[in-house]
Amino acid sequence: MKLVTFATDGQAAIGRVESDQIIPLPLPFGSMIDLIIGWPKWESEVRGSQAAPVPLKDAHLLPPVPRPGKILAIGLNYADHIQEMGGELPQRQIWFCKQPTAANGPYDPIILPKVASEVDYEAELVVVIGKGGRNISKQDAPAHVFGYCAGNDVSARDWQMATSQWMLGKSFDTHAPFGPWITTADEIGDPHGLGVRAFVNGEPRQDSDTSNLVFNVWDQIAHISQVMTLEPGDLIYTGTPGGVGMTMKPPRYLKEGDVVRVEVDRLGVLEAVCRAEE
Amino acid sequence: MKLVTFATDGQAAIGRVESDQIIPLPLPFGSMIDLIIGWPKWESEVRGSQAAPVPLKDAHLLPPVPRPGKILAIGLNYADHIQEMGGELPQRQIWFCKQPTAANGPYDPIILPKVASEVDYEAELVVVIGKGGRNISKQDAPAHVFGYCAGNDVSARDWQMATSQWMLGKSFDTHAPFGPWITTADEIGDPHGLGVRAFVNGEPRQDSDTSNLVFNVWDQIAHISQVMTLEPGDLIYTGTPGGVGMTMKPPRYLKEGDVVRVEVDRLGVLEAVCRAEE
Repeated sequence: MKLVTFATDGQAAIGRVESDQIIPLPLPFGSMIDLIIGWPKWESEVRGSQAAPVPLKDAHLLPPVPRPGKILAIGLNYADHIQEMGGELPQRQIWFCKQPTAANGPYDPIILPKVASEVDYEAELVVVIGKGGRNISKQDAPAHVFGYCAGNDVSARDWQMATSQWMLGKSFDTHAPFGPWITTADEIGDPHGLGVRAFVNGEPRQDSDTSNLVFNVWDQIAHISQVMTLEPGDLIYTGTPGGVGMTMKPPRYLKEGDVVRVEVDRLGVLEAVCRAEE
Repeated sequence: MKLVTFATDGQAAIGRVESDQIIPLPLPFGSMIDLIIGWPKWESEVRGSQAAPVPLKDAHLLPPVPRPGKILAIGLNYADHIQEMGGELPQRQIWFCKQPTAANGPYDPIILPKVASEVDYEAELVVVIGKGGRNISKQDAPAHVFGYCAGNDVSARDWQMATSQWMLGKSFDTHAPFGPWITTADEIGDPHGLGVRAFVNGEPRQDSDTSNLVFNVWDQIAHISQVMTLEPGDLIYTGTPGGVGMTMKPPRYLKEGDVVRVEVDRLGVLEAVCRAEE
């Protein structure tokens, strides 16, 4: 099943995507996080629900989880990206995060901040947590995934690299696009064989596959849940492959008017125009 | 005014602290974040409200903001702490964060994780954001502060230093105690002259003053709001002075049964017993 958060006439709602239409879900399901929490109880009702469909093209798609509790992200997690960044294959998972206020809809503009001049894309598989928990084993990890999205870990490199800590450079408003919807885990099965691609103005920039993750999705969930309780709707950005703008010679950062497209097989497409901050 | 989130019989509520009593606030104010959002409208009503008081000693004080949207934290922001950590006075503010699931009540136990062996304290002034905003100038920053708390930026040093990024080591569940209540900004005025102290089992460990901040509270708000929208109830941990356990010779980390006390002048006291994870 594919679940969206969308707006028509400014009113947010959630719905089920079927081909080029959205079937709005009745209000009792509340927000996407409420729906994820209630999923074991509501799944069959959501599958069968009927309502007057809204054409996808008439809806404004919001971030599927409009305000995630956490946006966690792993760094240096594809061998070719590690090589281009001049690093070594990490023995231990490297985690940072994006602030929840960075969440952005799948087709909304990416704002190029006045104070940052080196804004870059990172195409990624994004995991949406379903059942929360702490100290989740690798074996149990699949049972804690609600679904998957495509994601763009937009990164202001000048801010990311200005100090030892990457967080600010990863957290500009609009710099966490994901979506276009959540594809539930049952539809995907094993998430380690999905093509991940980025394009800027149609030019291919990144092209890899989640089978190349250094630490796979289950490793990631097991590792971070040793530290913190994962909760329904939390997001995990699972790392980006080689081909980011920063490592091109010379570097090619995003500029006003650029169109950034991120694709993940079977999960859909993000497409954003870059706009200068006003 | 001093505002608490508290529980009696497991039911969370908010209240006003007057000497050793809590005056519960009526339900329309909702959660602390709701109250902060509605403050311009509700302040006078909250000041005047009357209800049967609850003795402070009978209430379980929860984190004043039980689930902050963000917990942002600045590193290396007192000269003596920079010196003990072997760093240099930073030219630029170094920001990391703690995950919101780390929020902990002022007198609740700090859990020493099975997987971490070097858990340390950091006494800090904590800022609670009132009016949200982006690109807030230093001059306007005071108008965006709702109030202040004492805070302990508990840090699992072995996890913090295991990779280049500190976030996981700062984000264990229970490792963001703050409170005991929010003292509203009007009661404090300039926050740059408040004593900040930590004690372990009664032994003084940290003793400084917020006038020693390298980047002061207004600098901090101006800097991070260039990146992200600050929202009501967001927290800022403003840095810790010298005297952390890691830099003692030999290092002295927290162990089962240790009592960690954090004091900030005029804001109150946090006191936590350290408990091993079960």
